[in-house]
Amino acid sequence: MQPAAMTAEEMERRLRAEFPEAFQEVSGLAITEVRHGGARVRFAPTAGSIRPGGTLSGPTLMMLADVAMYVAVLATYGWVPLAVTTSLNINFLLKPPPAPLEAACRLIKTGRRLAVGDVELWSQGVSGMVAHATSTYSIPPPNNGLTNGVA
Amino acid sequence: MQPAAMTAEEMERRLRAEFPEAFQEVSGLAITEVRHGGARVRFAPTAGSIRPGGTLSGPTLMMLADVAMYVAVLATYGWVPLAVTTSLNINFLLKPPPAPLEAACRLIKTGRRLAVGDVELWSQGVSGMVAHATSTYSIPPPNNGLTNGVA
Amino acid sequence: MQPAAMTAEEMERRLRAEFPEAFQEVSGLAITEVRHGGARVRFAPTAGSIRPGGTLSGPTLMMLADVAMYVAVLATYGWVPLAVTTSLNINFLLKPPPAPLEAACRLIKTGRRLAVGDVELWSQGVSGMVAHATSTYSIPPPNNGLTNGVA
Amino acid sequence: MQPAAMTAEEMERRLRAEFPEAFQEVSGLAITEVRHGGARVRFAPTAGSIRPGGTLSGPTLMMLADVAMYVAVLATYGWVPLAVTTSLNINFLLKPPPAPLEAACRLIKTGRRLAVGDVELWSQGVSGMVAHATSTYSIPPPNNGLTNGVA
Repeated sequence: MQPAAMTAEEMERRLRAEFPEAFQEVSGLAITEVRHGGARVRFAPTAGSIRPGGTLSGPTLMMLADVAMYVAVLATYGWVPLAVTTSLNINFLLKPPPAPLEAACRLIKTGRRLAVGDVELWSQGVSGMVAHATSTYSIPPPNNGLTNGVA
Repeated sequence: MQPAAMTAEEMERRLRAEFPEAFQEVSGLAITEVRHGGARVRFAPTAGSIRPGGTLSGPTLMMLADVAMYVAVLATYGWVPLAVTTSLNINFLLKPPPAPLEAACRLIKTGRRLAVGDVELWSQGVSGMVAHATSTYSIPPPNNGLTNGVA
Repeated sequence: MQPAAMTAEEMERRLRAEFPEAFQEVSGLAITEVRHGGARVRFAPTAGSIRPGGTLSGPTLMMLADVAMYVAVLATYGWVPLAVTTSLNINFLLKPPPAPLEAACRLIKTGRRLAVGDVELWSQGVSGMVAHATSTYSIPPPNNGLTNGVA
Repeated sequence: MQPAAMTAEEMERRLRAEFPEAFQEVSGLAITEVRHGGARVRFAPTAGSIRPGGTLSGPTLMMLADVAMYVAVLATYGWVPLAVTTSLNINFLLKPPPAPLEAACRLIKTGRRLAVGDVELWSQGVSGMVAHATSTYSIPPPNNGLTNGVA
């Protein structure tokens, strides 16, 4: 069993530095677990993520699934910030209330060039799964640039 | 050939009233075409949508695809704001520069309960398609509530 | 914990009677588990499913994922043979050798009108998952016809 | 405008030689158009593809979408038989009658390593689209083996 490439704290620190627009205190995102092959990310609803009727918007759930997948990739391959999503498929199963969400990502393929994972989205106090996503990330070659492998 | 259920201006007005958090001047979204069976939506990059290296984030593209699909549904079925996404599948094809995007949605099924559409995302000055999405919306039954059919 | 709507033997008997073209001795399919909310189906390669280089064809894997989902739906809702696939998304992860495959399906939503499930495909002697699918089935209304609920 | 890498006749001849199990007279498949960036494939229903109620099975439609994508890849990249499907997403829109189907594939990305395309499935005498698929193929590197580039 390989360890994660870095701790959750270290990853949050780096993501905040690299993606100040997306990953900041007010974005509502918190990494709750990293491991080789997976990750968990929590999202506390922000004003912009709530929709009439008191539910969370679809794009919010897609963003959270994508972030969980990205964190799982970094936890497994190491710091490859130029890894990019090549596809994402999501099924919305239940309308989530405006409560914290937790995304649990598991990588089901960790190839040299492609990583594939699935993500389950759960909401506090809802018994069924809220949404389920499958996503593919393209992993950049090891020596292709300045950022890769550099904190 | 049926006409659209409302004009682009009327739809923008209603969406801003109904979804003040998502659909406002600063959100960067503008409806450029509505028709029975389709829609076009334009997105002008906002600070939060730009990523290091000068590209637009994946969740931004997913949000735009989802909005274009929603607008096409409203243009075709009339004002059914409780229509919800049940699935979305997206392939990211080219990294878009931080320039305006245009999403072109075409409904390929307009059933009583389900609408299915595909969405092409194009970026100004990029010759190839930037992303392609397919999405399914669940259409609420005609008489299920207060909001439905009410401006 | 609800029991399955019927045993694996009973389901095989019914499927062979209802779908003689698809579900017969020579099709290579065998139901190895049914439960409320899931199923396992085994596939022994047939001549037509093997491709040059000694792998199984993509359509064979898609067929197996679809059958596993169908069996899980029947095991959970009871005998609703008119249930139909409305969407399927599959990622091919590893080339399977021409050996028996096992599909494990789990339903993640069992709504009145829609069932959603994911399916893992494993191959004997291959350590990683061979393919992963997500699928949606439309469930027919209870009293819509002759076949429904009738053995 | 680049020409197709080979004619429809030449491609059928090669496919029958390379994939005798899948591509033969009795399989019901016929290539009706090849071009750089796309293809059309026709399918005449076989006994095994018809389901009770007089419709075509889901796996039959998935097989046809996959074949159309494969033919489009070969028409565009040249004879790369080791190209393999890495993902396929399909929405079933209307139940097709047991009549000939036509699949129209268009490549929307033709990268060095990945090709992405969408496929529309139409049935004779049905006005709406029967199914819509999106698929990704992995393109093998140019000099990786014996089969590649060899008739």
